[in-house]
Amino acid sequence: MSTSSREIEALIELMARLPGLGPRSARRTVLHLIKKRAQVMTPLARALSDVAASARECVDCGNIGTSDHCQICTSDKRANGQICVVEDVSDLWAMERGGSFTGRYHVLGGTLSALDAIGPDELRIPKLVSRVAEGDVSEVILALNATVDGQTTAHYIADQLAVHEVTLTSLAQGVPIGGELDYLDDGTITAAFRARKSV
Amino acid sequence: MSTSSREIEALIELMARLPGLGPRSARRTVLHLIKKRAQVMTPLARALSDVAASARECVDCGNIGTSDHCQICTSDKRANGQICVVEDVSDLWAMERGGSFTGRYHVLGGTLSALDAIGPDELRIPKLVSRVAEGDVSEVILALNATVDGQTTAHYIADQLAVHEVTLTSLAQGVPIGGELDYLDDGTITAAFRARKSV
Repeated sequence: MSTSSREIEALIELMARLPGLGPRSARRTVLHLIKKRAQVMTPLARALSDVAASARECVDCGNIGTSDHCQICTSDKRANGQICVVEDVSDLWAMERGGSFTGRYHVLGGTLSALDAIGPDELRIPKLVSRVAEGDVSEVILALNATVDGQTTAHYIADQLAVHEVTLTSLAQGVPIGGELDYLDDGTITAAFRARKSV
Repeated sequence: MSTSSREIEALIELMARLPGLGPRSARRTVLHLIKKRAQVMTPLARALSDVAASARECVDCGNIGTSDHCQICTSDKRANGQICVVEDVSDLWAMERGGSFTGRYHVLGGTLSALDAIGPDELRIPKLVSRVAEGDVSEVILALNATVDGQTTAHYIADQLAVHEVTLTSLAQGVPIGGELDYLDDGTITAAFRARKSV
């Protein structure tokens, strides 16, 4: 588009690469930003370059933060012997929003996948095994996605941890809160039926 | 969220203020950016601060660019005596994507609105009148949105320009290209019927 300027076009192109934004919403976003230069655009530019410079993975659990050891791994309150294994940082954040888990995490960085040639060493599975081997861990909670790859990965981890004295658990499967049976897939209904409990 | 860091939380909060992004997609976007720090995040931060520093409105037409006179107003090729009046810069960009208009623009910056206390002086209407009064303008095309406020504004502008020797036109209304009658609103069908032409 030769209607604005090279700088603005470059910004629109970069914006359009963000997940969930296409060319149209990128244009709308950039116009919005230009109209709110002082209130939004300049602070956003600064926040982006701050985080780009400081963001790093926690060497222990793989969580993203701004120091080599994340806030959860360095908090004494979270040292209760529980490790919750998740696929991605977004899953860690989702668990934290749930607010009921008080232990520490281990972010795998994906799932095993023969198709994408992702083996245990591409993930943080060896690091998980060594964390468990070091002791101090009483329970490993496998909070992987209920997908084929997620469950394959969970089985593999369970195998790897079998020699260690640690309780292995996984998230319950069943009807989501607020879920209506009529809208649930057959697999979920079957899982919920099998795991039924007395009231 | 105390799970990442103050900087990352601040960035998510700023991102969530962008149009079309809520807290959830802001988190997803920030994670995506952190994973692609070098390829996307740093260039985006730089592009944002570049544009924040350089973006300004064209003093003639109100288009957004990086100089006081926009590329369209300074191009001799666009000096054909036509001025297309649009509500917003996004409408100007949409007209340019259409690619059939070869004249210059005038961006009002909104529409007249009694509710929001927006009168002619809040918009760039006086500037439009003075551009027409200066001569060199043969046709003013009112490309305002087909909303009540847009049409009210079009009528007001037509009144203001009545004393000048200038042809006033507006965009045709009718069935959009690819549109199916069954999905069109009654108003559009009525307008298309009234403006029917011989084949």
